[in-house]
Amino acid sequence: MEQAIAAWRDRTFFAHWAEVPSGKIYGEAAAADGKTRFDAQLGKPFDRLLQRQAYSWHGEEESPYGFPLGITYPVLSPDVLVANAQRAQRPWARLEPAARAAVLVEALQRAASIFFELAHATQHTTGQGFVMAFQASGPHAFDRALEAIAAGAWAQGSFAPAATWTKPVGKATVTLSKQFRIRPRGVNVTIGCSTFPVWNSLPGMFASLVTGAASVAKAHPKVVYPIALVVAALQQALDTLGFDPHLVQLAVPTPYEPMTQALIGSEGIGTVDYTGSSAFGQQVERFCAEHGIVCFTEKSGVNPVLIESVAALDPVLENLAFSLCLYSSQMCTAPQNIFIPARGVTEQSSGRTIPFEEVAQRLVAAIDALATNDKVGPGTLGAIQNPATLDRIERARKLELPIFRESRPIEQPEYPNARTATPLLLQGDTRQRMQYEHEWFGPIAFLIPVASFDHGIQEITGSVQRCGALSTLVYTTDPSLQRSAEEALFDVGAPIAFNFTGPIWINQSAAFSDFHGTAATRAGNASFTDVAFVAARYSVIGTRSGN
Amino acid sequence: MEQAIAAWRDRTFFAHWAEVPSGKIYGEAAAADGKTRFDAQLGKPFDRLLQRQAYSWHGEEESPYGFPLGITYPVLSPDVLVANAQRAQRPWARLEPAARAAVLVEALQRAASIFFELAHATQHTTGQGFVMAFQASGPHAFDRALEAIAAGAWAQGSFAPAATWTKPVGKATVTLSKQFRIRPRGVNVTIGCSTFPVWNSLPGMFASLVTGAASVAKAHPKVVYPIALVVAALQQALDTLGFDPHLVQLAVPTPYEPMTQALIGSEGIGTVDYTGSSAFGQQVERFCAEHGIVCFTEKSGVNPVLIESVAALDPVLENLAFSLCLYSSQMCTAPQNIFIPARGVTEQSSGRTIPFEEVAQRLVAAIDALATNDKVGPGTLGAIQNPATLDRIERARKLELPIFRESRPIEQPEYPNARTATPLLLQGDTRQRMQYEHEWFGPIAFLIPVASFDHGIQEITGSVQRCGALSTLVYTTDPSLQRSAEEALFDVGAPIAFNFTGPIWINQSAAFSDFHGTAATRAGNASFTDVAFVAARYSVIGTRSGN
Repeated sequence: MEQAIAAWRDRTFFAHWAEVPSGKIYGEAAAADGKTRFDAQLGKPFDRLLQRQAYSWHGEEESPYGFPLGITYPVLSPDVLVANAQRAQRPWARLEPAARAAVLVEALQRAASIFFELAHATQHTTGQGFVMAFQASGPHAFDRALEAIAAGAWAQGSFAPAATWTKPVGKATVTLSKQFRIRPRGVNVTIGCSTFPVWNSLPGMFASLVTGAASVAKAHPKVVYPIALVVAALQQALDTLGFDPHLVQLAVPTPYEPMTQALIGSEGIGTVDYTGSSAFGQQVERFCAEHGIVCFTEKSGVNPVLIESVAALDPVLENLAFSLCLYSSQMCTAPQNIFIPARGVTEQSSGRTIPFEEVAQRLVAAIDALATNDKVGPGTLGAIQNPATLDRIERARKLELPIFRESRPIEQPEYPNARTATPLLLQGDTRQRMQYEHEWFGPIAFLIPVASFDHGIQEITGSVQRCGALSTLVYTTDPSLQRSAEEALFDVGAPIAFNFTGPIWINQSAAFSDFHGTAATRAGNASFTDVAFVAARYSVIGTRSGN
Repeated sequence: MEQAIAAWRDRTFFAHWAEVPSGKIYGEAAAADGKTRFDAQLGKPFDRLLQRQAYSWHGEEESPYGFPLGITYPVLSPDVLVANAQRAQRPWARLEPAARAAVLVEALQRAASIFFELAHATQHTTGQGFVMAFQASGPHAFDRALEAIAAGAWAQGSFAPAATWTKPVGKATVTLSKQFRIRPRGVNVTIGCSTFPVWNSLPGMFASLVTGAASVAKAHPKVVYPIALVVAALQQALDTLGFDPHLVQLAVPTPYEPMTQALIGSEGIGTVDYTGSSAFGQQVERFCAEHGIVCFTEKSGVNPVLIESVAALDPVLENLAFSLCLYSSQMCTAPQNIFIPARGVTEQSSGRTIPFEEVAQRLVAAIDALATNDKVGPGTLGAIQNPATLDRIERARKLELPIFRESRPIEQPEYPNARTATPLLLQGDTRQRMQYEHEWFGPIAFLIPVASFDHGIQEITGSVQRCGALSTLVYTTDPSLQRSAEEALFDVGAPIAFNFTGPIWINQSAAFSDFHGTAATRAGNASFTDVAFVAARYSVIGTRSGN
């Protein structure tokens, strides 16, 4: 915990769980065990949850790799979930913050034994490649959970839990004894998404738990298995440690009870964490505001890139190609709109200004080299979570913009029925901004000529103000341009990155160091994990005694 | 600053400015100077503000002590105020947090030279007695401002401003240089109230300023002078120190432009602080929620007292009588509904159970002793800020409840036309809860018989849930009852006090030690000064550089 708090404060590299799915780290049998468990679960009821009073069982998951999972989950009614949570929360809120943190760290540590099964579960619900699924739902998500615990422990440690207050009054003094206790705003509801069902959910859940609340994880109807596994593992750990397992529960939506509205409308809800579309997110935000519920959101953004000048172009394009291919751009941080000066990109190594068209063609080549590489392509691109994404690619084609690169399916060797698509690369036009200035979720990107660096920055900052962003990336070798870009992006509240090459990708956000989401744009008001993300979840209740 | 942060964290007694309006502390000439300045200001334009582009002058203040002030203030249009603020904010947001804190502490220290004039200005707009006006708008308010600076400095110090991040990747490493900068959500608007125009406004203003925002103080139309004085003094200090005085501005409402809606609807507003009625507060909250503005509110509450058992009754009733008389109960923390077991109050010293009726009569006697005392009565009760409060007393009479004590005017020796009223004390009935379960702002209180201690706690916790509260006070000599009351009040999020006697009153809330408002009831979502009160005002913007 001390290490985690120090890393969170210093923002240096820290990872408690190794990101490599290696037998040397996780045990030689772990990988095979995970696969066995996954195979055994297919087609069966998921019976590992410790939550009372299911009234039916439901499941509708299908692997984006082309087969139904056939798993059913226990369905509890919203009022039962909230009543369970409130019962569990009452004694939990009365523990000392440090005790809660210790219990949660231990529970996480025990739950980490599921990483390999979790990777399969994540792969076959979200469509992520196996390694990414392992990392995103396992070590990276658990590190974000640990980070939330650390942030919560630190914030709650801001005040002494008790004080003797002695005030001089003339020549005498008066004394009061005072206690200060943390009180959670109420039960937490965390609304998960279909692409990162664990990574996006654990921060809000653990920020709530460490500050004294019980949390209900509302799963996406098509992506239940990963978060069900995590909740079950946490429930088992809590139960073993002597705590009420209903501190964490799974809410399974059905066609008859979609859950979100009923849950957040229940008496006793204090905080809501939401990841998903902007349209529904705004409804959730409005409802919470009207009902005094604190609401943290990560909604949609539009992520821009500007390439003005580079040390060498190929490493830049390889880096970008990977970012565009990774999980077929089904990431909230994936770049979408790539602005390039119409006159081309200046390359230091060659002294050339490489024309716009050539940059485009070489980016296409870099994408091809990755996407059609039988060895690394399938694992990098994964599969398409939602059929609607394929429809979206079709709609993008109908914009009738110049096409630099067509989207095509790729083969996923073990899965002949996988739903796949490589990046579609179109040319945009700043005079037709409406065409690209909204989120084209999935493997759809635009190359857009701009008149100059300043014009590019102007387009990007305007886009951030109009649409929000979860990443921005600028390439320039000119320190003064870098400074001016930084100031302009700072002013509009965007996260900022410069000159990424090599194995650091703009899509990635490192726990303990990178804030995910600035909370300052239309893309959402949550930041993993800043002080407000934990501190707004509780009140300090003071007791003053004259006796 | 270190002392202030330590006090804020330890919650022990700390006061930077002495609360006694004494020449020994503030200079032998200070009191006379303040009076001279006040007298010289009456009937004249207030020309001490350093804000550009007033388009007219306006003033409509009248002293509750019975004479018009005749002061006019420069009126700037909302868009000019916001443009001024944004211009000032840009470089201010780029300072290091510690530099902002240092500048603000120095500005406060210089502004403290106005305390005596400020006391007269506060007395003759709010109706407070002189000593209270001195304390509330001077040292107590300035200590709350210092507390907000300390909290903001502490929260912003949670993260390193920069880090070198080195991640092992296989046998190699990758390195990014990272910066983390504080970015205010936007310009702050602080909406002041008519009874505590400075005390309730400074926390939000200084929490905003220290976290990088400019602040616009929107005054109540009838109570401008006190906050105008503070803003002018801060502007002069900032200007002298080389900063843009428009970091703090005064917004003066007129009958033609009431300001609040126009200000908070302006582009660039990031946070709003509001003190006032629940009805308008809810509108402000809703508007802010729909526009992505962070909103802190202190609205109305209903403050309950329960007297079950006491060491000795007289010190308890003297304490309560003072709380009921202080500023004629025009305080958000003043008690209103006093629950007493129907069988009476157990007094340890006499071994008696003192009947309900006797408790009531002795409380009336204690109020009479204070209110009709020519020496201390007028200064304690002060005058009634708003004529509507007298109408409210009339409406309370029309409830036709048994009257324990009638409200009557008192004489304010120097001010024959003062608007005054002593406490009206009625008997309530828990079967007619609607009669007393809303805020009867002003000198109106209810004595309400309950069946038992538990019944009393049940009434109080229900009231807190339905109406919110800014104070609760319970008298019991039984430690186990005290514990159960504490748990019940904790669960509903109320601030808690036990067994107050002597010179500690439930109305009072000490900077650096007491959280004012729990942010957990319908009485508002702001708490002076918890971590969320500062941390929700800014984002951390990360910059990652691969070069």
